[in-house]
Amino acid sequence: MAKASARGFRFVLEAADGRARAGTYHTPHGPVETPVFMPVGTQASVKAVSPRALHDLGATVVLANTYHLYLRPGDELIARLGGLHHFMAWDGPILTDSGGFQVFSLADQRRIDEDGVTFRSHLDGSEHRFTPERAIAIQENLGADIIVCLDECADPSDYPYNVRALARTHAWAERCRAAQSRSDQALFGILQGAVYPDLREQSARFLTDLGFDGYAIGGLSVGESKAETYGMLEVVDPLLPPDQPRYLMGVGTPEDLVEGVARGVDMFDCVLPTRMARTGTALTRVGRLVLRNAPFAEDPAPIEPGCTCYACTHFSRAYIRHLIKAKEILAYQLLSIHNLHLLLTMAREMRAAILAGRFQAYREAFWRAANDGL
Amino acid sequence: MAKASARGFRFVLEAADGRARAGTYHTPHGPVETPVFMPVGTQASVKAVSPRALHDLGATVVLANTYHLYLRPGDELIARLGGLHHFMAWDGPILTDSGGFQVFSLADQRRIDEDGVTFRSHLDGSEHRFTPERAIAIQENLGADIIVCLDECADPSDYPYNVRALARTHAWAERCRAAQSRSDQALFGILQGAVYPDLREQSARFLTDLGFDGYAIGGLSVGESKAETYGMLEVVDPLLPPDQPRYLMGVGTPEDLVEGVARGVDMFDCVLPTRMARTGTALTRVGRLVLRNAPFAEDPAPIEPGCTCYACTHFSRAYIRHLIKAKEILAYQLLSIHNLHLLLTMAREMRAAILAGRFQAYREAFWRAANDGL
Repeated sequence: MAKASARGFRFVLEAADGRARAGTYHTPHGPVETPVFMPVGTQASVKAVSPRALHDLGATVVLANTYHLYLRPGDELIARLGGLHHFMAWDGPILTDSGGFQVFSLADQRRIDEDGVTFRSHLDGSEHRFTPERAIAIQENLGADIIVCLDECADPSDYPYNVRALARTHAWAERCRAAQSRSDQALFGILQGAVYPDLREQSARFLTDLGFDGYAIGGLSVGESKAETYGMLEVVDPLLPPDQPRYLMGVGTPEDLVEGVARGVDMFDCVLPTRMARTGTALTRVGRLVLRNAPFAEDPAPIEPGCTCYACTHFSRAYIRHLIKAKEILAYQLLSIHNLHLLLTMAREMRAAILAGRFQAYREAFWRAANDGL
Repeated sequence: MAKASARGFRFVLEAADGRARAGTYHTPHGPVETPVFMPVGTQASVKAVSPRALHDLGATVVLANTYHLYLRPGDELIARLGGLHHFMAWDGPILTDSGGFQVFSLADQRRIDEDGVTFRSHLDGSEHRFTPERAIAIQENLGADIIVCLDECADPSDYPYNVRALARTHAWAERCRAAQSRSDQALFGILQGAVYPDLREQSARFLTDLGFDGYAIGGLSVGESKAETYGMLEVVDPLLPPDQPRYLMGVGTPEDLVEGVARGVDMFDCVLPTRMARTGTALTRVGRLVLRNAPFAEDPAPIEPGCTCYACTHFSRAYIRHLIKAKEILAYQLLSIHNLHLLLTMAREMRAAILAGRFQAYREAFWRAANDGL
């Protein structure tokens, strides 16, 4: 029973270069050219970066977090205020995750059963419950363009447990699909199965049979090796429909973007660029710069020579280090802008390379520079 | 011995309306239309606001702090990196204060003698000494357009002490003037005398006889009443040369801007807009809004209806309250932008009113609205 696409959505695959894909995902809030990196606005704000600055960076789609917004300020409040786009003043597409990953991260503070998960708020310890139906209802209140199923992101070390968890994730995917009442939101299924090829394959087959608007690949930012992550992408790539978008959840280092695209991924999100910024660290194509460190105290160079972002075209490493030492908020703004700019730019570069049939050359050049190091 | 104006500076008084003045202060980094509010970048950053955002707000001149930058990252480091304009990427005019106010705020951590002041760093307790010559040398290293004399900002409650402190401030002003070696920085004298009309008059006469590029009025943001502040402005206004700029230090509520301009002040600075922002408080023409409070939780209105700033044209009070509660940095950016926009806009409105000869009507309308309240 293949599902009709949600109203206002259309994925156009424009080019393939090896497994790498370039496409355009049309949404009710505008088109998203892929491959794309999606900045994360956990609490309805991409940390330290205004929507205006995100537009300037060329961001097209942002994430928000169902778990966090459900707890504070509440999905019903956001619905009463006109939905997430209006609330956070982002007029482009938005994707909300289901909250599954956050809830399962709570460890001792949550209890899973076949029907759903009961958990305690990290804010005040109060008890709450997510079922598949509730996760969809909350995401319908939030009103993002793209919503995802409630899934269980299980500890990858225990195979028998992952078999049971995957069965639950699939049952929940069916219930999420049935619970959806809005026709103007795309619903993505989430593939799980940890680092087990048979489970990943089973998950891809089950969810594509069920039929979703797109497919998220979950559970691959929880401590497994890069080789394992890349291996799982290779397992699912041929099983996913070519004419629908694929989204690798929570993964977003520069190298993961390149290797994810090389394995057929269209969409990425990661808190890394903004989280690194808050620790005073810059991402570059050739490694990380811990700018709070003393060697940068008098360094007149920009964060990353050649970078065209606002931070690199105006400020020195020495100034940014000073801001970090002085605990000035501007440090986090500038580092967030640079780090996001890098990932957004790399996604655009890869798209251009795929359209020009030279993705492999791009990938090789990236690795040559990365291996030459700083 | 009237002093020749510093190279590249010229104050043109364009209109007077009562005591209120409109002028243009030409500096090597561009013109400053007065009255003007100057955002404060204590540590070479206006807190949470990028230079780009400051330009968008129409800020023309910003402050930086000699005491803070001397301690961290060091004035010599800033000089080696090309000076403060390049360091903080602000290509408009900059004013540095002398550090006097900050040092005297250290209370038990400083010791004054006739030659200067010895103090302990608030960062690491290390001992340092400012003399008038040192304060000028540091400010010459920083390289702001406008620098000021080292002064003593004395406790206003003790008249005999203020007599002695004023004598010291005047002796230091002479030494600062003599110590100045750069001809491309305007040097402002600082009037002291606390809340004593005779001392203020004496200070105005002494410093104008000595001759400076402009006159700062210090010591009026240290706990005295508004009536006392306004009284002191009335004492010095007729004694200051009409063809030179006057700067009221550290004062900048909306009402103080209006009443300062009404008494002949051209330039203002205050940490209030950015400091209030960090407590979750918005300044408006009709009072302060503590946006973290519960009544704003579902308020769809902008911070200040009618305001044209980025925050007010895009976000609701409810969203900003959410950001405050969630400790999102964007809250402080948006509130800083709004608060600065208010003071910068009011300065521009007053200038237009003075040029049109209707400042008194503007002042009356401001007070009517303020007294009507929220």
